[in-house]
Amino acid sequence: MLEDHKRTGAYYNACMQNRAAFSGKVVLDVGTGSGILAIFAAKAGAKKVYAVEATDMAKSAKRLVAAQGLEGTIEVIQGVIETVEIPEKVDIIISEWMGYFLLRESMLDSVLVARDKFLKPGGALYPSHARMFLAPIRSNQCRQRHHDFQNSMEGWAEFCEDMKQYYGVTLECLSEDYRKEQMDYFSYTAAWTDVHPSQVVGSAACFKSYDLATVTLEELKAPLKATFNMTVLEDGPVDAFCGWFDTQFKGSPQNPVTTEVTLTTAPDPTGATHWGQQSFFLHPPVECAEGDVLACEIEVVRRKDNQRLMDVMVKHRIEGKAAPGKERVSCFHIE
Amino acid sequence: MLEDHKRTGAYYNACMQNRAAFSGKVVLDVGTGSGILAIFAAKAGAKKVYAVEATDMAKSAKRLVAAQGLEGTIEVIQGVIETVEIPEKVDIIISEWMGYFLLRESMLDSVLVARDKFLKPGGALYPSHARMFLAPIRSNQCRQRHHDFQNSMEGWAEFCEDMKQYYGVTLECLSEDYRKEQMDYFSYTAAWTDVHPSQVVGSAACFKSYDLATVTLEELKAPLKATFNMTVLEDGPVDAFCGWFDTQFKGSPQNPVTTEVTLTTAPDPTGATHWGQQSFFLHPPVECAEGDVLACEIEVVRRKDNQRLMDVMVKHRIEGKAAPGKERVSCFHIE
Repeated sequence: MLEDHKRTGAYYNACMQNRAAFSGKVVLDVGTGSGILAIFAAKAGAKKVYAVEATDMAKSAKRLVAAQGLEGTIEVIQGVIETVEIPEKVDIIISEWMGYFLLRESMLDSVLVARDKFLKPGGALYPSHARMFLAPIRSNQCRQRHHDFQNSMEGWAEFCEDMKQYYGVTLECLSEDYRKEQMDYFSYTAAWTDVHPSQVVGSAACFKSYDLATVTLEELKAPLKATFNMTVLEDGPVDAFCGWFDTQFKGSPQNPVTTEVTLTTAPDPTGATHWGQQSFFLHPPVECAEGDVLACEIEVVRRKDNQRLMDVMVKHRIEGKAAPGKERVSCFHIE
Repeated sequence: MLEDHKRTGAYYNACMQNRAAFSGKVVLDVGTGSGILAIFAAKAGAKKVYAVEATDMAKSAKRLVAAQGLEGTIEVIQGVIETVEIPEKVDIIISEWMGYFLLRESMLDSVLVARDKFLKPGGALYPSHARMFLAPIRSNQCRQRHHDFQNSMEGWAEFCEDMKQYYGVTLECLSEDYRKEQMDYFSYTAAWTDVHPSQVVGSAACFKSYDLATVTLEELKAPLKATFNMTVLEDGPVDAFCGWFDTQFKGSPQNPVTTEVTLTTAPDPTGATHWGQQSFFLHPPVECAEGDVLACEIEVVRRKDNQRLMDVMVKHRIEGKAAPGKERVSCFHIE
């Protein structure tokens, strides 16, 4: 996480601008990696920091901690949070657990396990809240991807010709499978994007909020379902939905922050964080007029074949001037 | 494998130019994939072909076989060769099992299992022989990779500065680890290359030959060790060793081919097969004079952490005019 200063900076500020909340406290860093968040917590005044890391990065973390002269405060423990032993309950859990579109390959499951095992009643999570957003955008990438799909199908047709001519083998019986596979790849797989705010052509909807102090593992593992509206702000085509998240550092009611910090991955003219945004392309585009409302339903489900990947279904219907009423359902993967 | 016509064409020729060897025979295709080799064997006159495929590609293979009207001859069986049942012994085993540098992620282990279980005495393997080669080359890529390594180290230095300035964290204690990791990546990891024959500046040495009728699984799993010489044909630097393989289709002594076919992955002015060549970069380059002999030892070992990847050690010593006598040992990975 180190090279992304929006990210590292947000955690730094969340700690250093809230020394009162950290002063004399016991902190647990879940998935410490290089140890950087544990170091921030110690610098912010924590009395003791347990920094848990499953991988051999724990060895680097130990050295980094020692190089800052913080080995008296920070204890690096190599292990997985589900089985690790920590000798006391903690006041604060800090963790950088977020994945693409918040939840893909996220470590939030482990943070909740840590919360339920180790956080004192009234203790605080850093971050304490997370939100997911969707907005309609206009993107060249959509046309490009459709073009790439067409190229791929032309390549297949040529290949079939060659195979017939060179080897007398007819491949046409596999064409439909090939087409589906390519459609799936080019049209129904969400893409990492660095969207410029000028591409956002409608209001962003916050379709999901998590209070990390109370959300349960069961809620997190169940399908996420939401209905929401997005208002189109410009005439013209909408050819993708762009998804992102933010996390907020508010502390807990019993130990609130003095300065609230937000880490956002929204479209930004200065460029994306490493998370970028996830864009879901709509081909053909949806022709919209200013003031139209896109009435949406979203469902985000962990994939059965791989719990860390996700299927996303978006149902939308235009309510307004342009071609109203027709419902369209699009199903995507986040790979 | 289909889109690589050097590869597909070699198997096609090996079958179709040797109809006498296939006529009326029982054939086993190990890892048939789309079924193409089984189809070639059937077209060449095989009486019966068992086409074994572990993955769901078996379903495509069945449809492709039916589309050629060959379902009476070819039986597609989904399963792994180690446990699959085949109701008779076979005359010929055909398989496209080769990996990068011949052995990386290769399916040869499975082919030998199939041979020992299912091939009649005197039966033939297609291919029947395989050879591995190494040659000294001159490559821009070596300089480029060293340049990339230097860039990466400069990036790290800047990053350390930023981390100190922004967050008061000193990272220098990790610099040596970072340097090693980057060296490993840029200098000691073999690269897929499409080498032009004009880059080859010395004689190629065939350092290993396999007769697939007799090689044992034990031999294959043991470290491959060889000593050999390469003669430099041009004055100037040698900055990489380039490795490739070929396979030969000779049939068996009891059922020989009429037309011998070779599939080579050597540097080729018309471009590489999908296997390319594996290049092992030498930085700094070795200054050589025409006529110098590079006396080499090579050792290729399966990696303990992943049997399908390989470590390659090359020891070389110049015997000749330019800077003779000094031995240099380079250790590479094939990832």
